Amino acid sequence: METRNIFENISCIDHRYSLSEAEVFNGLSKYISEEASIRSCAKCEAALVKSHLKLRGKLTDEIAQSLDKVASKIDPAEVYAEEEKTKHNIRALVNVMKTKVSAEIGPLVHLGATSVDILDTALSCRMRDVTKNVVLPELKKLEKHLCAIADRDSEVPQVGRTHGQHAVPITFGWSIAEFVSRLGKSILRIEELSNQLVGKLAGPVGSYNGPSMIVKDPEELERVYVEFLGLSASEYSNQLVEPEYLLRLLLEMNVAFGIIANLADDLRNLQRSEIGEVFEYFASTQVGSSTMPQKRNPWNSEHVKSLWKAMCPRVITFYMDQISEHQRDLTNSASQRFMADYVAGFTMAVARMNSVVSGLQADKETMARNLENAGGKVKGGVLAEPAYILLGEAGINDGHEVIRKITLEAEKSGKTFFEVLKTHKEAFEKITAQLEKLGVENPENFFEHPANYCGLAAKKSRRLAKKYEKLMD
Amino acid sequence: METRNIFENISCIDHRYSLSEAEVFNGLSKYISEEASIRSCAKCEAALVKSHLKLRGKLTDEIAQSLDKVASKIDPAEVYAEEEKTKHNIRALVNVMKTKVSAEIGPLVHLGATSVDILDTALSCRMRDVTKNVVLPELKKLEKHLCAIADRDSEVPQVGRTHGQHAVPITFGWSIAEFVSRLGKSILRIEELSNQLVGKLAGPVGSYNGPSMIVKDPEELERVYVEFLGLSASEYSNQLVEPEYLLRLLLEMNVAFGIIANLADDLRNLQRSEIGEVFEYFASTQVGSSTMPQKRNPWNSEHVKSLWKAMCPRVITFYMDQISEHQRDLTNSASQRFMADYVAGFTMAVARMNSVVSGLQADKETMARNLENAGGKVKGGVLAEPAYILLGEAGINDGHEVIRKITLEAEKSGKTFFEVLKTHKEAFEKITAQLEKLGVENPENFFEHPANYCGLAAKKSRRLAKKYEKLMD
Amino acid sequence: METRNIFENISCIDHRYSLSEAEVFNGLSKYISEEASIRSCAKCEAALVKSHLKLRGKLTDEIAQSLDKVASKIDPAEVYAEEEKTKHNIRALVNVMKTKVSAEIGPLVHLGATSVDILDTALSCRMRDVTKNVVLPELKKLEKHLCAIADRDSEVPQVGRTHGQHAVPITFGWSIAEFVSRLGKSILRIEELSNQLVGKLAGPVGSYNGPSMIVKDPEELERVYVEFLGLSASEYSNQLVEPEYLLRLLLEMNVAFGIIANLADDLRNLQRSEIGEVFEYFASTQVGSSTMPQKRNPWNSEHVKSLWKAMCPRVITFYMDQISEHQRDLTNSASQRFMADYVAGFTMAVARMNSVVSGLQADKETMARNLENAGGKVKGGVLAEPAYILLGEAGINDGHEVIRKITLEAEKSGKTFFEVLKTHKEAFEKITAQLEKLGVENPENFFEHPANYCGLAAKKSRRLAKKYEKLMD
Amino acid sequence: METRNIFENISCIDHRYSLSEAEVFNGLSKYISEEASIRSCAKCEAALVKSHLKLRGKLTDEIAQSLDKVASKIDPAEVYAEEEKTKHNIRALVNVMKTKVSAEIGPLVHLGATSVDILDTALSCRMRDVTKNVVLPELKKLEKHLCAIADRDSEVPQVGRTHGQHAVPITFGWSIAEFVSRLGKSILRIEELSNQLVGKLAGPVGSYNGPSMIVKDPEELERVYVEFLGLSASEYSNQLVEPEYLLRLLLEMNVAFGIIANLADDLRNLQRSEIGEVFEYFASTQVGSSTMPQKRNPWNSEHVKSLWKAMCPRVITFYMDQISEHQRDLTNSASQRFMADYVAGFTMAVARMNSVVSGLQADKETMARNLENAGGKVKGGVLAEPAYILLGEAGINDGHEVIRKITLEAEKSGKTFFEVLKTHKEAFEKITAQLEKLGVENPENFFEHPANYCGLAAKKSRRLAKKYEKLMD
Repeated sequence: METRNIFENISCIDHRYSLSEAEVFNGLSKYISEEASIRSCAKCEAALVKSHLKLRGKLTDEIAQSLDKVASKIDPAEVYAEEEKTKHNIRALVNVMKTKVSAEIGPLVHLGATSVDILDTALSCRMRDVTKNVVLPELKKLEKHLCAIADRDSEVPQVGRTHGQHAVPITFGWSIAEFVSRLGKSILRIEELSNQLVGKLAGPVGSYNGPSMIVKDPEELERVYVEFLGLSASEYSNQLVEPEYLLRLLLEMNVAFGIIANLADDLRNLQRSEIGEVFEYFASTQVGSSTMPQKRNPWNSEHVKSLWKAMCPRVITFYMDQISEHQRDLTNSASQRFMADYVAGFTMAVARMNSVVSGLQADKETMARNLENAGGKVKGGVLAEPAYILLGEAGINDGHEVIRKITLEAEKSGKTFFEVLKTHKEAFEKITAQLEKLGVENPENFFEHPANYCGLAAKKSRRLAKKYEKLMD
Repeated sequence: METRNIFENISCIDHRYSLSEAEVFNGLSKYISEEASIRSCAKCEAALVKSHLKLRGKLTDEIAQSLDKVASKIDPAEVYAEEEKTKHNIRALVNVMKTKVSAEIGPLVHLGATSVDILDTALSCRMRDVTKNVVLPELKKLEKHLCAIADRDSEVPQVGRTHGQHAVPITFGWSIAEFVSRLGKSILRIEELSNQLVGKLAGPVGSYNGPSMIVKDPEELERVYVEFLGLSASEYSNQLVEPEYLLRLLLEMNVAFGIIANLADDLRNLQRSEIGEVFEYFASTQVGSSTMPQKRNPWNSEHVKSLWKAMCPRVITFYMDQISEHQRDLTNSASQRFMADYVAGFTMAVARMNSVVSGLQADKETMARNLENAGGKVKGGVLAEPAYILLGEAGINDGHEVIRKITLEAEKSGKTFFEVLKTHKEAFEKITAQLEKLGVENPENFFEHPANYCGLAAKKSRRLAKKYEKLMD
Repeated sequence: METRNIFENISCIDHRYSLSEAEVFNGLSKYISEEASIRSCAKCEAALVKSHLKLRGKLTDEIAQSLDKVASKIDPAEVYAEEEKTKHNIRALVNVMKTKVSAEIGPLVHLGATSVDILDTALSCRMRDVTKNVVLPELKKLEKHLCAIADRDSEVPQVGRTHGQHAVPITFGWSIAEFVSRLGKSILRIEELSNQLVGKLAGPVGSYNGPSMIVKDPEELERVYVEFLGLSASEYSNQLVEPEYLLRLLLEMNVAFGIIANLADDLRNLQRSEIGEVFEYFASTQVGSSTMPQKRNPWNSEHVKSLWKAMCPRVITFYMDQISEHQRDLTNSASQRFMADYVAGFTMAVARMNSVVSGLQADKETMARNLENAGGKVKGGVLAEPAYILLGEAGINDGHEVIRKITLEAEKSGKTFFEVLKTHKEAFEKITAQLEKLGVENPENFFEHPANYCGLAAKKSRRLAKKYEKLMD
Repeated sequence: METRNIFENISCIDHRYSLSEAEVFNGLSKYISEEASIRSCAKCEAALVKSHLKLRGKLTDEIAQSLDKVASKIDPAEVYAEEEKTKHNIRALVNVMKTKVSAEIGPLVHLGATSVDILDTALSCRMRDVTKNVVLPELKKLEKHLCAIADRDSEVPQVGRTHGQHAVPITFGWSIAEFVSRLGKSILRIEELSNQLVGKLAGPVGSYNGPSMIVKDPEELERVYVEFLGLSASEYSNQLVEPEYLLRLLLEMNVAFGIIANLADDLRNLQRSEIGEVFEYFASTQVGSSTMPQKRNPWNSEHVKSLWKAMCPRVITFYMDQISEHQRDLTNSASQRFMADYVAGFTMAVARMNSVVSGLQADKETMARNLENAGGKVKGGVLAEPAYILLGEAGINDGHEVIRKITLEAEKSGKTFFEVLKTHKEAFEKITAQLEKLGVENPENFFEHPANYCGLAAKKSRRLAKKYEKLMD
């Protein structure tokens, strides 16, 4: 067993992040390391043998279990040693496997298969398994955290922002419900796509030339083979399975990554010194800056955004790998290996975002103050907008002018917009009546708090939170 | 009406390709030019007015038609002139529209909407319409051409190639069936996604603040509005609709683009001087090269590949545009405008591929010759593989050795592999018996032609051709 | 002359932005429209004729001028009409040109050239000319604006920010000097690279096969040809000039674009409601938001960032176009045409940034308030850091503890950090003495203003401003 | 020392390719592994201490050596253990270093520095060192191999190809000289840029706030610090050095990568079954295909192209990392770590190309046959072009017609073009006289071999080979 000091690795996935995200790394390694890769190929070779036996009516449970056991214990080092001689990785694996099975079964190993019948099928298995067992659990954990916040803080008022400028009020739950809805759909799609991955057993150019010399119905042999592995068969194969099954899964992971990067940016900005509306959890022994000890940097959110920058452009490689000349060239071989890095980078970002979100607290006081100050010189002035809309709806043509004067009066007197509005009885009554028509509770107090002007923010936040909380199970 | 000499435009979409692909350009321009863009916004404003009237029980067919007529005739130049003053494009449109409708209806224009309620909804309409009316028809035409070739040439033998090296036989139909299957699925998915685009009417931060001052159930108003436009509502909106609906459509277009680029590369390579298996149609007055008049370059296939290189990396922009700070920043505004260029570039590539494929001819003679020569020094030697597999299946342990000797004999004598094989009666009988078991017709003549060793190529080509031919309707 | 309503164009470069940035568009169109493209090829054909005449000793000024005049007046529509027949754009141009010159000169048109000898050379001319005459002037204008601000506001105190958190003081000039330095270097490099573009006259595969049948020294003919056009010859050519000359220019434009996008982001963020340190110029008739009239959005900075998102990923296309099989394939032809769009998008972003920066004002009052508030609960507390450093330098081991107590005292008493520090005479004297050693003027008043703790910000801002102001000439 | 089974790593750089390219991996690991990274930071901390001592006149050789020794032996595991507590990697390193130096020197460790003063400076050192010691040697080895082939095969005739179609003759040396010239320039530029990398010692916001409390001239301290490390100082720094120094180096590596990918594609295509003009070295025990033993796939060239596809799009990340808000955000931190993966991927591709090129053989016989067959039905017909050019130059107006008839005669008679041409005495004499004027040796035999029509291919190949061979030293 060849080992190396972790710090001598080159990719940060295999050194720094394998330690800082140890649990996730171990989960990923189990499915997409080189060891996992070789064993997944061995599992496919075992499935092929089982398929031949099944079609010949000779498959017993005992044989099946023994084959699976051989596959799951293949030693990568032994295969690599053999590859030194063959210069061909699948041929090396086949040679090694043949030494582990009985003499009768030996000839069935790899029978009728071309290397890619094993390689592409095994890749689909690995990608499905890592998605199901590592990626999706992390994603669903994140989604559930977000659902919890959207529900918990559905009524916590916050100023809405467009162009970085104060707009009208929302709630913090509402700002999080955005990610509940967007990420939720992406997670469901990732799950769907990971269940649609395909395998093949169709020979070097996909037209079952060799297999058709061995069995009467080579498509049946293929069907049995991929079913042993829980897959279906690629509708068409040349040497490769159709690349789009896997491509779409990767593109959708990158969709989810973009959503999470957006969340990271939003949280980064809400942590600005001047805004200060949310805080990441900060350990007591943690150093913010070696020279500026007061600082609490949003470095986890920054980290997530940074991983997105590292990974997002790699979709170009995935698209490039769609093109393979004629029945295939090999120019997708090395590039495809880096798919594991992409999945690792993505999952580590999800895990980090999980740690951010699990401890995320809204600073309700600051949110309230920011919202209050949003009106500028007129306290509660953010409510001038609904006042003039309501007057208009009540049939007052110069409603806008009426309200403008009230804001001026408020500014001069230092009173709040509401206090002054109440003294304008006629207008106030019309507005209140209009609110009543709309079914607003306590219409007389509507203008006391900007938080009342949040539309359906709270209601819809809770609705989305509940919907996706359920869908994650 | 401001006009410009076409040749003074900067983008080749608007000069060179608007002429060389005039029909496609005109189709696209109808849906995604600036004029189309402004009118689609006007159509949304009209739908909003209709929604208010409908909820008030005041919408008549006459009013509806008159509003739609106003929208469809909005003059972009007039809107631009107004924007000079307002510096705000939607406010300019609203001002112009108000001058075109009756005094009672005027106040309903844009009532309760924020600009993006119009802009994002209109963009979804345009993208759905251009996809349905221009992109999909071109794509389906291409798919049908491919189906026709896969069916027509399902039995035309061709040597399969992997790594650019001769492998085992296929048929030309089989090599085209690849694109039938891959492109077919992508077309169906594009259609599905274009029908899932969404609109919104939820105010500046998406929580229906303003609308909730106007109607009791702002989500109902939104529903009516988007239904007038044939859309559904974004499950969540802040200022923007969820960006992923549109993103997924664009990503899938790029998936289709990659498949078509692969086809272009395959056709380019099949036209190499040394291969010469297919030919693009070549006009009699066309000049191949100013100095080398014998040349017939595969320039249409090269053009398609080149457009792919220009467009494919732009998906990074689409992904970047997922990120919009808080309830939105405007950094997706200019970048989103170039979506039209992408759709144009893609559709023009499809159209060009259509012209390639519509005249595409297999040079059957050359294909046959290349296949015959594929065995190297042994004529028909490409059939040594099935011979040894069949011997193996017949229980002969040293089948490989037996066949190897036969190939040597063939090489020395200059006879074909088949001629020599026949003289080895025992082996030949075992092989023939095995072929019989597999249900091969005329097993005695199997080795006469490499074309017999095409597995299921022909059968599956036809099956896929028929399936997708039907699905395109 | 074929014309089209501008609003029927598809690319926003040719409709919306051709109007909003009319001056820049017209400048660009002069050099990189299709008309400009055809005329630049005609100019190359003229140079080729002149070269033949020169080598034969028959070139007169009169002939030279007449040839240049023909080239500059070529009508693109005429060339396109001819291309309808030839299906070859350069052959069409040659045919048209031959009709415009005398019978003796006719045979010299295109003599010894392959199409790309003209096309690649003309592209280099256009890219050099548009860079020199449109791109660089806009860039230098921007750089000079930045120099002016860095100089003007070199002493305007501002709080420094890292991770979006308040750090230690800088000056606004210093924050702008960053872009003076980074952009300045990029401009100089763009200029250098645009002067290194190359042409060729080396025949279809670059080895001067044809030319060597016509002249004794074909490299001399090439030299004369490219010198007429102000270029040098590609060190090696096959059918194409080496692609890296042009690639490096485009990559460097994208470097400059990244710097400008960074500036745009910084300005966007400084305009946040909660920060409010700078303002873009805002026209009095301009509408910020249709429903929220108080808003002044940083939409120009957002526009610049958005253009960067649209253009930056296109470098992948530039890199892809490095690869051309053997002596060339044509897959760089269409993709290369979009280079014009890139240059246009980039230049329009520079122009927009010019308009932002030309009216950019620092809100000194807000900057001062933000800096003052940066210390949190201790007024002027941002100066605790230098106080403890200076005590340390003065040999006091527990300096950090001494200062910490002073900040606590200040917090309790509500006095400023400086007021309390002064009362601690021993410490204050040591600190003052240390400041004196460092050559600080008025060391006793150093702690009165955080602005005093700006290190070399002001000095270095001015130094960089002066240096690059001069380099731009 | 924490170790891991290599096959449990996730990135193929750290498992498969660390074994298949063991020598290169070990070279890279020495400079850009995590261990190397931490030690390079330690080296910077040592340089900082030396700088303080030097300015105080207290630096001795002994102290200097002892500091460097401490730095070179820092144990990453110890630093990581400390980071567990501090959650800050540089603070952890500083704490560890302080335990390794004397009590007097302790306080000088990290004095006046912010973390990035160390981190960015150390990154520049690593990138310079890995470029100088690993990347450039591999590149220069490749360039020299190419020079050798361009020189060796400068006279080996080959048919030129454009659009994959036969064009006019070149030599194999000429086709390789392309890469000599393109790659040569890129190597020289990489070397230049790696020598221009910069460091900084300017504090958290770059304006030397802290340092200006410690020394009179903080720019002098910075100068001394970076000079100890063989760097110069960034002209401007905020928290970061200007990102463009490093960006340009990475962009140029990607330029070189594109050139090498082009070479890989050319070699792949020359190895097609139908072309067969070159061969990669193939080990005797190597398996081409498990089922098609005759195959010799160009898998090394395919591997290089595939690595290019994996790495090229990552330049988008490098460009994205130009943008850092205000005096810096941390969103470039994780993304920047993957720079090591890029450099590794690039260098491994260069190394693989070295192994391809070192054993690369031109199959001269096949090249000759392909060239001979290039004329189609007229043997030697590729020489019709120079014949008609020469007749034209000799003043014969209908030269093209004369030659056309000769080719028809040759086709009918089955004789070569040359044999027939000779019988047309008048034309032949004029052509010969014209060749004589051009200084062609043995003009009477010019048309015997297409190889004679190679222009300056041979001469210029040798010239370029010699030039760059010398420049590589």
